[in-house]
Amino acid sequence: MTSAFDVDTAVEEVEPGLFRATVSDRWNVGTIPDGGYLLALAARAIGEKLPGRELRTITAHYLRPSRCAPIEIEVEPVKEGRTYATAMARLVQEGKENVRVLATFASPTASGLEHVRGAPPELPPVDACTRAEPIDAIAISHQFETRFAPDSAGFLRGAPTGNAELRAWVRFADGREPDVLSLPLIADALPPPILEVTTFRWLPTIELTVHVRGRPAPGWLRCKFESRFVFGGYLEADGEIWDSEGKLVAQSRQLMTSND
Amino acid sequence: MTSAFDVDTAVEEVEPGLFRATVSDRWNVGTIPDGGYLLALAARAIGEKLPGRELRTITAHYLRPSRCAPIEIEVEPVKEGRTYATAMARLVQEGKENVRVLATFASPTASGLEHVRGAPPELPPVDACTRAEPIDAIAISHQFETRFAPDSAGFLRGAPTGNAELRAWVRFADGREPDVLSLPLIADALPPPILEVTTFRWLPTIELTVHVRGRPAPGWLRCKFESRFVFGGYLEADGEIWDSEGKLVAQSRQLMTSND
Repeated sequence: MTSAFDVDTAVEEVEPGLFRATVSDRWNVGTIPDGGYLLALAARAIGEKLPGRELRTITAHYLRPSRCAPIEIEVEPVKEGRTYATAMARLVQEGKENVRVLATFASPTASGLEHVRGAPPELPPVDACTRAEPIDAIAISHQFETRFAPDSAGFLRGAPTGNAELRAWVRFADGREPDVLSLPLIADALPPPILEVTTFRWLPTIELTVHVRGRPAPGWLRCKFESRFVFGGYLEADGEIWDSEGKLVAQSRQLMTSND
Repeated sequence: MTSAFDVDTAVEEVEPGLFRATVSDRWNVGTIPDGGYLLALAARAIGEKLPGRELRTITAHYLRPSRCAPIEIEVEPVKEGRTYATAMARLVQEGKENVRVLATFASPTASGLEHVRGAPPELPPVDACTRAEPIDAIAISHQFETRFAPDSAGFLRGAPTGNAELRAWVRFADGREPDVLSLPLIADALPPPILEVTTFRWLPTIELTVHVRGRPAPGWLRCKFESRFVFGGYLEADGEIWDSEGKLVAQSRQLMTSND
């Protein structure tokens, strides 16, 4: 429990189903806590109520920005079955709900059916990639080591590629290994890929869903995020997170608005 | 109100926030009502509470199969803001919750930011595509006219392509034009793309999310559904729905299990 992620997602159950935590400022984008961090916090509280099961799919609807302050997480069981258990969570600060979350956890399962068309994101070796220097105004950038593919992340050197796609190696800066619970955070931890097309603007996330597809092996994660449909005031960001052994461990999609 | 879809998604508010409806057998897959139909039913009930706003994103977690019988839809407002309104719904039969839904609706918005990399699914003209004959055991197949790209849907002629991707023109069989509320249904109305790889098995949906990206123009919809990651007991199906004018109107993703 010494890693920043473990400390900052610590939850305490103060009444049955009611958890207290503190939103840390180490995962901020500007002054606002990152949505993936809040999602991981919710997943952790829900997981406390579902021992022996692992996160499989989680969706958050973001209602208002959270603050770096104490937060309550109210977990409501929805259904507990043999294999699957579904629960809801409300993240509340000062009596106002900031985030509503719906998640399904599962017992370990398997199946022989296999058909994989996707491949890990194209990334040169870590040392041949572009190190992203942390930016003080973006606290979350200090929490990860990120190495971008040289042909993506042009925005870092003032030369956006014009293609809203980012590919990068990612790991926690403090050496914590990735696990299932860190995937909702990592799904929202990189800069928005639309920075390859347009200069920074605030893009509030309306909804974020993460499908967990496996337990990540230790080491660097290979990540790809892209926005293919930016129009009409909205954009999506689709993510794939692969582990160091070349297995897909999460898919994510979020809906953002460009209207603020 | 004479189309099958309108009749079968009719909801009546019997108490504030409590809707009654009847799950029709016209949208069954085998004996089980289609998940997209139930999602459209929930969206319609939620929409009744949010006049002047349009569905933007909706997520369902499927807890147990529903039956063709009366159903209650309990709508709980989560937050109503200036632009966005979020609500939750529970679909209940005989005192048991079958589906939990979370949705955000929005007032009309716009933004100048535009960047579109995707294109409508590759489909020859309607007349050059393969007509899918309705199958009596799959009632929902009678509700749509579906014309598959000749190089997809090989499973229809006993020659699966080996690529879990389906591309098709789709419209309601009774001539009803597509609208926003029909998109959650259409996102789950075609056969699962994995039929191009393996013979039929029951693949329960755990979670389905639909992002509405625009109002469909009248006419045929161009649809593409694919499963790229089938392993470990799970698979996703990603969907894109484009309208007759070549605009993306919805993106969908569902998580299914292959363990039953």
